[in-house]
Amino acid sequence: MSQRSEGDLTNTGMSLKHDREWDYELDRIVEAVEERDAEKVGLQFPEGLKRRAPAVADDLRELTDGVRYLISGQPCYGACDLDTYLMRRCDVFVHFGHSPMKESDKIIYVPLFSNVDPFPIMEDSLEELADPDDDPDVGLVTTAQHMNLFEEMYDWLEERGFEVHTRRGDDRLTHEGQVLGCNYASADIDADQVLYVGGGKFHPLGLAMEHPEKNVVIADPVNNVVTIADTEKFLKQRYGAVHRAMDADTFGVILCTKIGQGRFDTAEGIVEENENAHLITMDEVTPDRLRNFDFDAFVNTGCPRITTDDGPRFHKPMLTPGEYEIAVGNEPLEDLEFDTFHGTW
Amino acid sequence: MSQRSEGDLTNTGMSLKHDREWDYELDRIVEAVEERDAEKVGLQFPEGLKRRAPAVADDLRELTDGVRYLISGQPCYGACDLDTYLMRRCDVFVHFGHSPMKESDKIIYVPLFSNVDPFPIMEDSLEELADPDDDPDVGLVTTAQHMNLFEEMYDWLEERGFEVHTRRGDDRLTHEGQVLGCNYASADIDADQVLYVGGGKFHPLGLAMEHPEKNVVIADPVNNVVTIADTEKFLKQRYGAVHRAMDADTFGVILCTKIGQGRFDTAEGIVEENENAHLITMDEVTPDRLRNFDFDAFVNTGCPRITTDDGPRFHKPMLTPGEYEIAVGNEPLEDLEFDTFHGTW
Repeated sequence: MSQRSEGDLTNTGMSLKHDREWDYELDRIVEAVEERDAEKVGLQFPEGLKRRAPAVADDLRELTDGVRYLISGQPCYGACDLDTYLMRRCDVFVHFGHSPMKESDKIIYVPLFSNVDPFPIMEDSLEELADPDDDPDVGLVTTAQHMNLFEEMYDWLEERGFEVHTRRGDDRLTHEGQVLGCNYASADIDADQVLYVGGGKFHPLGLAMEHPEKNVVIADPVNNVVTIADTEKFLKQRYGAVHRAMDADTFGVILCTKIGQGRFDTAEGIVEENENAHLITMDEVTPDRLRNFDFDAFVNTGCPRITTDDGPRFHKPMLTPGEYEIAVGNEPLEDLEFDTFHGTW
Repeated sequence: MSQRSEGDLTNTGMSLKHDREWDYELDRIVEAVEERDAEKVGLQFPEGLKRRAPAVADDLRELTDGVRYLISGQPCYGACDLDTYLMRRCDVFVHFGHSPMKESDKIIYVPLFSNVDPFPIMEDSLEELADPDDDPDVGLVTTAQHMNLFEEMYDWLEERGFEVHTRRGDDRLTHEGQVLGCNYASADIDADQVLYVGGGKFHPLGLAMEHPEKNVVIADPVNNVVTIADTEKFLKQRYGAVHRAMDADTFGVILCTKIGQGRFDTAEGIVEENENAHLITMDEVTPDRLRNFDFDAFVNTGCPRITTDDGPRFHKPMLTPGEYEIAVGNEPLEDLEFDTFHGTW
């Protein structure tokens, strides 16, 4: 494990700038605005970047004339999570922070490539990877923010004797080697270890749950730390939720209405089979919104990360569709696995 | 003031039943479902009644054949707050707990008339009203839940020597004497005192803020208590917010996207006049959703009750459009008044 503690910013972009800088690709936006003669432009930022919205809007106001900018105040956690209300009412809609899940004429996806240098922390991560002489096979994955350096990362590992395995995954993913919180098909590769380069543990924990047989090494250039993804806490919570739901008589089955998170057939299928299940439709799935509903357990057919990451915050057991099948006895407990999303909409 | 404390249930429906009962008007719903040969029916309940949703859906399943019921999990605080997503995807859409704000072929509004007897607490409220021999004029208002007894309440007061003043208000209100959280046009009557019959202080506090010159007596048959609406705390908070916003350089101007809460021209007007103001679009206006936005103050052109009732929970001063005009110096401080909504959509 790296000797550096989380937050030690030596040798990273962070240490120099004390803040990440992002490429907002304003030229590309201005070009689209002019090309389409846009009067109304919608701007959507993920949660962590909403505070930058006014400055970006100000810059765009400077660069364009007579254009109204509307900032989405809806929570946003992914490319699956477009503010369709605002999108329909604007001539151009800019979605920052994620790569395209589905191409559209109206949407400009600005992935916001990070300026943080990943190579110092990749150097540190070698301690956690197998010696290439013993096991040269390694998978390489990252997020939209670091995709611009993916080829360099690939070459960097090859130069150090690794055989690097990468995959595009399925059509929910834009790029080779890209992971989403709900999709790790890019790590479906022939290697026992995967190097994740990127900020935070959100993505690598999902990766390790989806691929429990692989060693997932996290090279985090943002927090400047190397760790191994450890899913034990999450798995205990999942088994706990399933066991508690085994006593449930009534189920609230959530159909998420966000454009990229709806699994209508799954939700409908459960309700058709179980007369004690009811369908609940909502966009944001939060503990507050479900507290007023009197069900013994819930099944979330929307974003799987709400179930796994926020699960303990709900007042009743919250299950994935697969976990529901186990809880009602349709499937054996050993079939418990991570819930993922495939395809677009 | 009544000698009864809040929660003393003597002589009320509450004391007998320990819970209010509501008339869900299932026959009317079933009739509409059959008439329109509906396959999908949406059910929307206000927050306090969401826990009844599964039982109501079960009853409807019993009474109809081959119909799918979908329960809205979106927060709901009024007839202004229709779940338009679900509505568009259903053949019949039932909105419980409010009276119609706008008639529609697809929507069935079920006001949920309460079974609580209001007359014992109205008897108590006489202590707080002027003696009819001194001042016989009294306004009478109530909410959708007690509208079925409005004429009886009217007669009851007349029998006791009052001259009862009532008004329908404007087209945001369905009934004579009805109030909404955002509209007290029905209390625009020629009397110095108004009797509000209904549960809670939410409506009468709005009434007293909108009509500060009137004595607003609250006869609350649900909590079995008589009180006088006291707006002092709210008014202090409003003046405090305006004063703090006087130092603001940047403003986030919220345009609420809920069908009955949008004031686009107001929001747009502010942003056009002030280059340090930006437009933010959202449906639920909550402290959490605004915390990530870096503005010195916010202007809420959506539901005025979020501004007045939840104001102190926001991390920055939250103003009504009228308060904004005072904060930036366009209007004098003495013009501060309660923000109301008129018309439909």
